Amino acid sequence: MATSGQLMAAEIAEQPEVWRRILAEGNQQFDAAAKTIIDYNPRHVLFVARGTSDHAALYAKYLTEIVQQRPAGLVSPSTMTAYGARPDLRGVLMIGISQSGGSPDLVQSLHVAREQGALTVAVTNQPDSPLARTAAINIDLMAGPERAVAATKSYTAQLLALYLLIDRVTGGDGNAAEALPDLGDTLLKQNDRVAALAQRYLFASRLVSTARGYSYPTAREAALKLMETSYLSAQAFSGADLLHGPLAMIEPQVPVLTVIGEGVGGRAMSQVLPRLKEQGADVFCVGTPEAVAAASVGVELPAGAHETLAPLLEIIPFQQLALHLAIARGGNPDSPRGLRKVTETY
Amino acid sequence: MATSGQLMAAEIAEQPEVWRRILAEGNQQFDAAAKTIIDYNPRHVLFVARGTSDHAALYAKYLTEIVQQRPAGLVSPSTMTAYGARPDLRGVLMIGISQSGGSPDLVQSLHVAREQGALTVAVTNQPDSPLARTAAINIDLMAGPERAVAATKSYTAQLLALYLLIDRVTGGDGNAAEALPDLGDTLLKQNDRVAALAQRYLFASRLVSTARGYSYPTAREAALKLMETSYLSAQAFSGADLLHGPLAMIEPQVPVLTVIGEGVGGRAMSQVLPRLKEQGADVFCVGTPEAVAAASVGVELPAGAHETLAPLLEIIPFQQLALHLAIARGGNPDSPRGLRKVTETY
Repeated sequence: MATSGQLMAAEIAEQPEVWRRILAEGNQQFDAAAKTIIDYNPRHVLFVARGTSDHAALYAKYLTEIVQQRPAGLVSPSTMTAYGARPDLRGVLMIGISQSGGSPDLVQSLHVAREQGALTVAVTNQPDSPLARTAAINIDLMAGPERAVAATKSYTAQLLALYLLIDRVTGGDGNAAEALPDLGDTLLKQNDRVAALAQRYLFASRLVSTARGYSYPTAREAALKLMETSYLSAQAFSGADLLHGPLAMIEPQVPVLTVIGEGVGGRAMSQVLPRLKEQGADVFCVGTPEAVAAASVGVELPAGAHETLAPLLEIIPFQQLALHLAIARGGNPDSPRGLRKVTETY
Repeated sequence: MATSGQLMAAEIAEQPEVWRRILAEGNQQFDAAAKTIIDYNPRHVLFVARGTSDHAALYAKYLTEIVQQRPAGLVSPSTMTAYGARPDLRGVLMIGISQSGGSPDLVQSLHVAREQGALTVAVTNQPDSPLARTAAINIDLMAGPERAVAATKSYTAQLLALYLLIDRVTGGDGNAAEALPDLGDTLLKQNDRVAALAQRYLFASRLVSTARGYSYPTAREAALKLMETSYLSAQAFSGADLLHGPLAMIEPQVPVLTVIGEGVGGRAMSQVLPRLKEQGADVFCVGTPEAVAAASVGVELPAGAHETLAPLLEIIPFQQLALHLAIARGGNPDSPRGLRKVTETY
């Protein structure tokens, strides 16, 4: 019989290898896709995704707004499926993101978008999936089969693929990403330390995660991993939104997870931490040595990744935390109760 | 000394009166704004807001996508403030929503949007606020002073103002909204019943709210009210996103709040309820008599509001629930711990 969490542990550890593969073998697909997008010159970019992939979409939305300098939005799939909206999407770039490429609502959203004049891109781990066949352009995540229900390697593969695509569209050469696999290997060595830290949350029933900017999707994805595997109520807020109401429910028994890295997003958290301290919060920080030292506990990020790429690294300690906490609480993170690997929503 | 929740109770009860005022006195501002927007003919609509106002923005995003048939997005304010993005926004309609009109990040986002070529609209309860002065068009919510920290009447005023604006832009006459104030008065009479139901959650530490389509913003706002006033962890998910992971953490001790009204969004929940039952969930439903009968407990909505307007009504039982639960748990919903009425984020 398989050990609990065996699949998830292997897929977490495999991530730097997946990134190396994308960097080594992905050039042609990114070059070709970027050329088509540059020629199309989108006036606007829309993303459609659900679950973990929606967090990759949120990351790409920040890149699109800040680096590509185009307005961007996340589509509510129901508007084009259940409600039958048929907006004029000429000049719009619509990117669908899904590990399996199989959820009918995403396939239909991309199908409608194409009919309505959008240039469509599918970012999937299954190049022969319905989503990939529906889109004009297919980006293959090359992450290999993902068997644990909680997505890990497909998530960071999505982040890297979206980074490389947008980087190329804005004239980059992707070189900044070359350092990532080695940094990932370094970070993975914290595994035993994170396993020990997981004991801290053995009896927690709820927690909050918070970050800003490029790291906000990390907070969202960290919360989802913990919900999926450890059955905690885990709520993510942008640091700013946290101050607009939810701060009231922070108390010493509601642990806070945060990401405070180098860069604008990390610095913007300086408004949030004093308010968390006023509420008596216990803080787990993934970030710079200074930020970790100021928190209750934490994991330092290896230096060397630009803020735009740091999300690939930041999520790793949270994936490990979800894995070890689930096991410590008697669950099996490879197959959480109530979930299926491919979720079909309409 | 003031009784706990006195301000919030009064402001909840005042809502139909606020709607009557908007319907009676708002015609001129909506006509003028709609004319400017029709002449401008936006290719795309962006919203910027935080907290409760962000839920009004999400509601308006559905209206924009489905009724106005324009692509729409919610802006992450940090991209244009902290990160300094300067996208080309010619042809874009940018709508900023804020009760106070005072948060610096929203003001700066609208200021940048205007410089970058967008047509800007401020929807605020303070016509002399910085946000209102920054925008080309100002929509006054006419809700009167809101003194409870937890926003209630300003929220439904925002929903109604955004409905009337988008309705006029698409050639409507706003008549469908005329029935709302009387329906609101009917619904408010459930107050004692909701106060009794609140006892059910006296010892809950976390809950989940879920709905789809136009009612999804209601689920989000219900969760925020409960977090703000009763210090619960309350997480909102679209019914579809719930199935993509978070479902795993639903168990009999995690109550679920849901909205299942007439229309597409309510019908789309039929995929979700059986899965909740499999997990043994306790369900509080605001919706049709059939949906309430199938739930553990609930409040029936009076018939007569179109799905696009139902969110004004649906939120009322949840506002009442937040009020009564906060008082029952010994808090004062008029001034929750850690919060200020005007939140300034950067």
